[in-house]
Amino acid sequence: MSLQHLLDLPGVDAAPEAATRGYVFNHTMIRVKDLARSLDFYTRVLGFVPVHKQDFPEAAFSIVYLVLRADRAGIPDDDAERLRWVLGQPGVLELTHNHGTEDQPDFRYHDGNAEPRGFGHLCVSVPDVKAACERFERLGVPFQKRLADGRMKHIAFIKDPDGYWIEILQPAPFAG
Amino acid sequence: MSLQHLLDLPGVDAAPEAATRGYVFNHTMIRVKDLARSLDFYTRVLGFVPVHKQDFPEAAFSIVYLVLRADRAGIPDDDAERLRWVLGQPGVLELTHNHGTEDQPDFRYHDGNAEPRGFGHLCVSVPDVKAACERFERLGVPFQKRLADGRMKHIAFIKDPDGYWIEILQPAPFAG
Repeated sequence: MSLQHLLDLPGVDAAPEAATRGYVFNHTMIRVKDLARSLDFYTRVLGFVPVHKQDFPEAAFSIVYLVLRADRAGIPDDDAERLRWVLGQPGVLELTHNHGTEDQPDFRYHDGNAEPRGFGHLCVSVPDVKAACERFERLGVPFQKRLADGRMKHIAFIKDPDGYWIEILQPAPFAG
Repeated sequence: MSLQHLLDLPGVDAAPEAATRGYVFNHTMIRVKDLARSLDFYTRVLGFVPVHKQDFPEAAFSIVYLVLRADRAGIPDDDAERLRWVLGQPGVLELTHNHGTEDQPDFRYHDGNAEPRGFGHLCVSVPDVKAACERFERLGVPFQKRLADGRMKHIAFIKDPDGYWIEILQPAPFAG
């Protein structure tokens, strides 16, 4: 569908107010049961870098912002500057950890894909989806959908430690 | 907290495999009841641009990818090129519309912030959070939390047509 057709879709405002021009889709927040397990997954398996952590002891929770950047050299070293920087970036992941959930054996968060549904998934795009999936298999990452499953052979879904779905795809044409 | 302390947090892999270097946190997917209402909200209120739509008639759903960019000149005009481009960008929003939900009066999606909890919110950062919130008030956008509510006076939460929370903040220091 051409860009012009997209801008003509019902509901679309093709020329929003100039005020929106400085807006940035900064982050997506998900709650995680065990912060160390999630940090392991998002850094070791997917390559994210934690760039800010804030603890709220009175409300018994912590947040961590993570970014996924090929070039870490662009991440400011100064703490205040790094916080300003990350809040102006697109594609940031915020993990919220309510303290103590990691010690409750039956505690689990809702992934949004069973009833009641809502949020669906995060997506990480990769240069080579087959190589990435082979790597995830080697690392023992659980799959929701392997490339060979279902009709869409060019995408896979892995699961993070809380069971949130993460779509894996490649931008370039897929060799099959 | 310094970057070095962040990299020393329990669970963090400070030097993930080189294979992750090309990975991009591409998109977040949420299901929406009424696509036209959501496209109106995300384009008119927040300034997003729809850059790809795909219909799956056999499974009765459609998806739309949207980006929030100050400079639209960077969006490729060619359809195939634009799809490759958007799948390599960070900070993309994917709306999934299951056909017909808009005609079911009692149908609603789950925002993740009541039980069962999981996904929390999206966040749009803005150059001036007070000006942005005044604009949202003028546009009649519902608030989950105004700047004056609660203890965190520098952030607000608005709600999209499905009730998903969208945090509004500014990267620069907040004048109060």
